[in-house]
Amino acid sequence: MADAPIRGLADVVAASTALSDIDGSAGRLFYRGYDIHDIAGRISFEEVTHLLQRGTLPTRDQLKDFCAELSTNREIGETAELLLPYVVKSGTPMEALRTLVSALSIDDPDAAQSTPAANERKALRLVAQIPVLIARYHARRSATEVAPVDDSLGIAGNFLLQITGVRPTERAAEIFDECLVLHADHTMNASTFAARVCAATLSDMHSAITGAIGTLRGPLHGGANEAVMHTLQSIEAAGGDVSAEVSSRLARGEKIMGFGHRVYKTEDPRATHLRAMSEELTELTGNRTYHQMSREMECAVLDRKGLFPNVDFFAASVYNQLGIPTDLFTSVFAISRTAGWTSHVIEQQLDNRLIRPDSEYIGERDQKWIPIEER
Amino acid sequence: MADAPIRGLADVVAASTALSDIDGSAGRLFYRGYDIHDIAGRISFEEVTHLLQRGTLPTRDQLKDFCAELSTNREIGETAELLLPYVVKSGTPMEALRTLVSALSIDDPDAAQSTPAANERKALRLVAQIPVLIARYHARRSATEVAPVDDSLGIAGNFLLQITGVRPTERAAEIFDECLVLHADHTMNASTFAARVCAATLSDMHSAITGAIGTLRGPLHGGANEAVMHTLQSIEAAGGDVSAEVSSRLARGEKIMGFGHRVYKTEDPRATHLRAMSEELTELTGNRTYHQMSREMECAVLDRKGLFPNVDFFAASVYNQLGIPTDLFTSVFAISRTAGWTSHVIEQQLDNRLIRPDSEYIGERDQKWIPIEER
Repeated sequence: MADAPIRGLADVVAASTALSDIDGSAGRLFYRGYDIHDIAGRISFEEVTHLLQRGTLPTRDQLKDFCAELSTNREIGETAELLLPYVVKSGTPMEALRTLVSALSIDDPDAAQSTPAANERKALRLVAQIPVLIARYHARRSATEVAPVDDSLGIAGNFLLQITGVRPTERAAEIFDECLVLHADHTMNASTFAARVCAATLSDMHSAITGAIGTLRGPLHGGANEAVMHTLQSIEAAGGDVSAEVSSRLARGEKIMGFGHRVYKTEDPRATHLRAMSEELTELTGNRTYHQMSREMECAVLDRKGLFPNVDFFAASVYNQLGIPTDLFTSVFAISRTAGWTSHVIEQQLDNRLIRPDSEYIGERDQKWIPIEER
Repeated sequence: MADAPIRGLADVVAASTALSDIDGSAGRLFYRGYDIHDIAGRISFEEVTHLLQRGTLPTRDQLKDFCAELSTNREIGETAELLLPYVVKSGTPMEALRTLVSALSIDDPDAAQSTPAANERKALRLVAQIPVLIARYHARRSATEVAPVDDSLGIAGNFLLQITGVRPTERAAEIFDECLVLHADHTMNASTFAARVCAATLSDMHSAITGAIGTLRGPLHGGANEAVMHTLQSIEAAGGDVSAEVSSRLARGEKIMGFGHRVYKTEDPRATHLRAMSEELTELTGNRTYHQMSREMECAVLDRKGLFPNVDFFAASVYNQLGIPTDLFTSVFAISRTAGWTSHVIEQQLDNRLIRPDSEYIGERDQKWIPIEER
């Protein structure tokens, strides 16, 4: 008989990683030793992907080669291509994305191998393909053609171009690029941990990333950014009195999405940047509504619950102002976190042990089989 | 900074469950308090699914209703149906199964809900659909028509019928049914744990089961049963000297698949039953080769490494003798474990906390951003 469980594995150290680190009391996040405050707005999503997957911030030549590799590996393959019209039937993009990413392995030339080199190639390919899958899915369901890729734009700019159909302003592309940098990795969050549990059986990269996408979808994880937008919209529809709505929701015992975090005891450093970007975007869009409501909600929740906004909170008004449909917010999170997930799979398999915890049994004991006619 | 990790979460109690319990030193396994030795061979896979998903061994009327529900929920839906010809391109059934199960949610009437009642309906549907998906996939790739379901047979018998194209003998169907019972649940194994990590974000049943399938695939988990068969066949091809082959593989530092277990310190109780079934099948098939080789390998590995066979070891010669193609062995494991996975998802969401462990950071520190031209 086992001991009582450590619920949610809170504070249990489940793995070693050289990818990211959090100082929860100081509210600091590091990618391979770089403080997020030092690199956010200064490096591109492509650079952070190189940092996580390959170990270093790239030199100019390395970045040029890496971007060229990303471009040539953007094709989604025949199977995902064929599936697109069928998965569009799903009203939820994360279901479609989970199915499409699972299908990517069928055409992946490295699907049968999990050597470090093959893992590195699959990791790069997934970062290149996932934004394309989402853009293609969105074009299909909107019965439009996806805009051709513009090679003068990076992953962030091309995604905005393909989702909105309009070439983003330089600043909008930069802001979205910074969003992708901010979401790229975050130690043993639930989806990353699910990817490592999968990888530790020596299963393959696509199985791990498919599992991570399904895990990210949950409203207690990546799904929260869509929930935040729905909350803002429902408060707006109810008249827009944020403070009163927060009070009545809390009085009804409801959870306010986008606040609090298992690890941070102070402001999530990503929220600091997202708040500033949300503010800046109001100048570009001329629409302050959701940003203003978000600021009011932030104050109301801090005041009444002592909780700080997390990464999902200001992401909602940022993505909304960038013209991204609400039901794609969690898929956008997946684009970025794929850089982290894939790097964790590589790292796990380089020094592997099967992840297989125990459980405490709390059910009936000493049951005796009796024939069905006597039950 | 966090402590050193507990590698593989060995002996960490990660959850409470009323579904199954293992006594690793005595080599005993219980489903909801029933000793596997008491129920194996006495209850059907349908009964064990009812036990796990609904909490009790069914009465005769309950079993009749449950089987009727399983029958009416066997349809795989339009999306999976449409995908079948495309996923056949994959040479690996577990890739196809992962993709098809992900697609099942698109047509599931309860996809958008995770209430206990909706979870229970989805859990039943997945148990009914997964064997059909595998049989349909196998028929497609073999360019044959799948045999129509025979309502006088249960899930086990119908699966053998549809995979081999021949109605199984009564005893073969019983033996396969017992295999499904033996694999139905096993506390916090890696795939079940992956399903619970997913479900704990309040993501959906299909995301959790898709993730579990990807996790089961790994050779350190469910993938081991296929690896055992490949080992037997390669030793046979090399002349069949099991003892010498085991020695030379161990001398080369190779792992012998199908032996040892994180939790059992003595014989895995499931192996006891599978060994007996493998022996019995040699009488029915008249072919002792793989059973005999398995017995020799068991002795050689126990002798040289002190390791006992686990559930995957004798499953290989049993499935082979039942006429199941080797590359479907892990998918067969998935049919059975779906009863456990789905029950764990239900249980997790009834008393949930996000599963989010910590990690120890072991990488570089105090890195400073420098402009790309100076790197």
